[in-house]
Amino acid sequence: MRYELYYWASIQGRGEFVRLALEEAGASYVDVARTDGGEARMVALLDGDTNACPPFAPPFLKAGNRLIGQTANILLFLGERHDLAPKREAGRLWTHQLQLTLADLVVEVHDTHHPIASSLYYEDQRREAKRRTADFVTNRLPKYIGYFERVLARNPRGTAYLVGGRLTYADLSLFQVVAGLHYAFPNAMARVARRYRHVMALHARVAARPRIAAYLASERRLPFNQQGIFRHYAELDR
Amino acid sequence: MRYELYYWASIQGRGEFVRLALEEAGASYVDVARTDGGEARMVALLDGDTNACPPFAPPFLKAGNRLIGQTANILLFLGERHDLAPKREAGRLWTHQLQLTLADLVVEVHDTHHPIASSLYYEDQRREAKRRTADFVTNRLPKYIGYFERVLARNPRGTAYLVGGRLTYADLSLFQVVAGLHYAFPNAMARVARRYRHVMALHARVAARPRIAAYLASERRLPFNQQGIFRHYAELDR
Repeated sequence: MRYELYYWASIQGRGEFVRLALEEAGASYVDVARTDGGEARMVALLDGDTNACPPFAPPFLKAGNRLIGQTANILLFLGERHDLAPKREAGRLWTHQLQLTLADLVVEVHDTHHPIASSLYYEDQRREAKRRTADFVTNRLPKYIGYFERVLARNPRGTAYLVGGRLTYADLSLFQVVAGLHYAFPNAMARVARRYRHVMALHARVAARPRIAAYLASERRLPFNQQGIFRHYAELDR
Repeated sequence: MRYELYYWASIQGRGEFVRLALEEAGASYVDVARTDGGEARMVALLDGDTNACPPFAPPFLKAGNRLIGQTANILLFLGERHDLAPKREAGRLWTHQLQLTLADLVVEVHDTHHPIASSLYYEDQRREAKRRTADFVTNRLPKYIGYFERVLARNPRGTAYLVGGRLTYADLSLFQVVAGLHYAFPNAMARVARRYRHVMALHARVAARPRIAAYLASERRLPFNQQGIFRHYAELDR
C-alpha cells in the first residue's frame, strides 16, 4: 500500500514529523500537495462534505480508504504499523506521551513569532513576538529541553533513545525539534547546547541513520524557511 | 484498583477532562492534590529523580505502578479500559484525533488571556490579550466549533455523539469545552449558539447523563474561576 501524505507543499511544518517516520520506515508514500494539482486535492478533502471523518487541518494521511489526522495520532498509527514504537501498552503510551509533549513545544515555538494571530503577518505582531520570545527562550525552552535531557538520562536502557533501547517516532520528532530550534534560535541554542548533551547527541544519532541521512540529503527535505513553524528572526534571537 | 489523579487542587483545568472520564466510567479514584499534603506529593513526583517516566506537567494518572501523563494520552488509556472509545483501531484513532483537536482549542483558549507568558499575570499582558481574543472570537472559535458541528452532522450513526452511536471520551471533552466557553465568553457564545445546534445539544445531552449530572451537582466539581484555563474577563467578551 502506498500512503498519501497531505501537507502544505512549501514548508516542513508539522508534516515533517510524519515524513521522518515514513522515511525511517522505508514506507512508500506520495507527498500529494507537492504533485500537480495536489494542493487543490488536499483543500478539497478538507472542505468537502463527503468525508465522515474530516480532518481539522493538515497534515493528514490517507492509508487505504482511511483518512487519519493530527500529527501525533498519525504517528501513533505509523508507530504500530512500522515498528517505530514498543508493542506493549506501557511503552506505546509512554512514547505517545513524549510525542504530545513535543507537540506542546511546537505550538509554543510557533507562537513566538505569531503570539496574536496566525492570520496576521509577523510584522503586525512584532512587538508582542519579542515579549513572547523573551519568555520562551528564558523559561520555556530550558524547561522543555531539560525535560527531554532528564528522560534520556533516566532511561534504564541507556541514553541513546527516549524509550527503551531502540528508536521510536518520538526520537525522530525530538531530532526535528532540535534541528528547528537550531535554525530559529542559533544564539540561544549555542548557549544551552552544552547543558543538554544527551539531547544533542540524540539529534546527531538520528541524523546519521542511513535512511534519515539519505532523506536529509535529498530534495524531498525542504530547507527551513520563513513560512514554517521554525523561523529565524535575528531580532528575536538575542 | 483505585486510580490516583494528580492535578492542581484549585482549578478544573486540564484535570477536568480526566475527571469527567473517571466519573462517567464510575471508576474509583482519589484526587490526590485535594487531600492533605497531596499537592506536595504531586510536586515530588514531578521533580523527583526516581521515576524513569516522569510527566512534564499535571495532569497525570497513577494506575497501579504506572504513571501516565498528557491529558489526551490518559484518555486514550482510560477509553480502552472503560469502554469510552471504540475497540477497533479506526474508531479508536478517530476518537483520539477529535480529542487532539479539542486539546489544540484548549491551548488557544488559554492563550486568549495569556498570549505572552504563563509566568506573567493577566494584567501584565492585557493589551495583547485583547488583540488575541478578538482574533480568537472572530476566527478561531467559529472554525473549531463549526468543525465539531460538521463532524456531528456527518456522523452516519446520527448526530447524538461524535463517534458512532455511543458516548466516547471525546463527547465528554467537547461538553467541557462548551461549558468553559459559555463561562469565559457568554456574549460571544450567545451570538453563535444557534448556528451550532448539534454541538449545543451534545453539551446538554452529556450534562444530563446520570453519572455526569451527579458529578456536576457534587462538591467534586469545582466552579470555573479566574485561575483556570477558561476565564471570564468582561473586557475580552465584547
